Amino acid sequence: MSLLVVGSVAFDAIESPYGKEERIIGGAATYFAVAASFFSHVNLVGIVGDDFSKKDEAIFGGRRIDTTGLERASGKCFFWAGRYLQNLNERVTITTELNVFADFDPKLPEKYTDSKYVFLANIAPIALDTMNYWIERTPDDLKETLKHIDILVINDSETRQLSNEHNLLRASRRIFKMGPSALVVKRGEYGAMLVDKNGVFCVPAFPLEEPHDPTGAGDAFAGGFMGYLAGAGQKTDAALRRAMVYGTVMGSFTVEEFGPNRLTRLKPKEIHARARHMLKLSQFKL
Amino acid sequence: MSLLVVGSVAFDAIESPYGKEERIIGGAATYFAVAASFFSHVNLVGIVGDDFSKKDEAIFGGRRIDTTGLERASGKCFFWAGRYLQNLNERVTITTELNVFADFDPKLPEKYTDSKYVFLANIAPIALDTMNYWIERTPDDLKETLKHIDILVINDSETRQLSNEHNLLRASRRIFKMGPSALVVKRGEYGAMLVDKNGVFCVPAFPLEEPHDPTGAGDAFAGGFMGYLAGAGQKTDAALRRAMVYGTVMGSFTVEEFGPNRLTRLKPKEIHARARHMLKLSQFKL
Repeated sequence: MSLLVVGSVAFDAIESPYGKEERIIGGAATYFAVAASFFSHVNLVGIVGDDFSKKDEAIFGGRRIDTTGLERASGKCFFWAGRYLQNLNERVTITTELNVFADFDPKLPEKYTDSKYVFLANIAPIALDTMNYWIERTPDDLKETLKHIDILVINDSETRQLSNEHNLLRASRRIFKMGPSALVVKRGEYGAMLVDKNGVFCVPAFPLEEPHDPTGAGDAFAGGFMGYLAGAGQKTDAALRRAMVYGTVMGSFTVEEFGPNRLTRLKPKEIHARARHMLKLSQFKL
Repeated sequence: MSLLVVGSVAFDAIESPYGKEERIIGGAATYFAVAASFFSHVNLVGIVGDDFSKKDEAIFGGRRIDTTGLERASGKCFFWAGRYLQNLNERVTITTELNVFADFDPKLPEKYTDSKYVFLANIAPIALDTMNYWIERTPDDLKETLKHIDILVINDSETRQLSNEHNLLRASRRIFKMGPSALVVKRGEYGAMLVDKNGVFCVPAFPLEEPHDPTGAGDAFAGGFMGYLAGAGQKTDAALRRAMVYGTVMGSFTVEEFGPNRLTRLKPKEIHARARHMLKLSQFKL
């Protein structure tokens, strides 16, 4: 079934203890779409400036990604610059320039309207995967949007910020009252947690010896997660658990190299091998 | 099979956002022994001062804990005072008074010498479960001891401190060169990770809505972990995984109330119910 993503396509400047990139394709919708396309057809809605070349757009080529909804505007692409500390879990945002994204009024091509799954990737004033930027700047719009969301994908500090509650179970209950019926809490190197009416399901992060750059890992996680659900066409507890695993797998590949580099040359068999490795990582019998 | 623990029996003063205790029985060996006794016979070696009454000693009574090796000395018990911040993962040590523990020269009662499993609970200059106190003060003695250790139980910040390496996989490899062939990394609210020749196994923390006091959770984890292994009499990969689960279960009960209060009135059927809940929390099928 078709999966629609609305969000940013951007350029990033990234610095980590493992290297530096002055200008690399980024954006939540980019990571999401590329990751999700391994599991499902993806309809992309976003906006780029005239600094986004045909060569840049090739990142979406040869994949199950429809870019009819990728609008071109006069100006520059969304630009984000950040630096990761020694502990790759912490980052400092140096700048967030919305540019053409500032006045972006998403338009759905007619053929996208049959999309059964919709992912709002870090976009104002609507959000599925929300960032502290929107929590701080447009909390009312965010709350209105949350009323229409089924599954909120969010990181642990954002969960705490949005709910004003440290304990993640109590925080989840508060967020359920805002609209979502399921919460996926991304915890970086500690994995991810699904909280819904069935209870809690935890999946560890895939352990990597050489992580390089966490940028986009959360978006690729969401892409694997939603892509799997859309591809499977079901939301059973078993499917949601598998979706968490595939999300984790896609996130783990993403951090192995700078920007989306590792993701763009990924093979399906590598994904399935790593998913099987996730079994070994977490399964036990009593 | 018999499990020997050598370590501190103490009094603690504990403050957390959920309450305060001025003087409650604590000590790594206490938490360890009580937790382990649900799974195995435990031989306790420790030292207490004359402030440790018969009533205090009752914490070990009616359990499979032999206290022949609990020495009484003139002076005061080991005393630790600490405060937990809003995020219960962070704590500030207010004071560590070694008292009678300072010159403690552990003596093994004759009947303890058949113990097949030995746990050195946070004791200088030897350590299995080591704390930053010893890493900072007696690194050479610690390194000598590590040569004789099979499984090192340690938390994530101590893992990084001991190995001088942030990445936990690389840190583990460095620590294996120091002696241990397996590492159990305790990660507080994020669960625990086993690293050995078979690879990595991760177990999530049991999610609690009302954690009160993390004191002793790591020692109770070690008690459940080692107690299970000693009780089962095996160190297969499957047994080690189950041991991680039972360690997690014992740690989770510990934090539900101040000090060892919850642990001391725990029923075996509660332990098994929570272990089954751990399956629900982490298992998936591809």
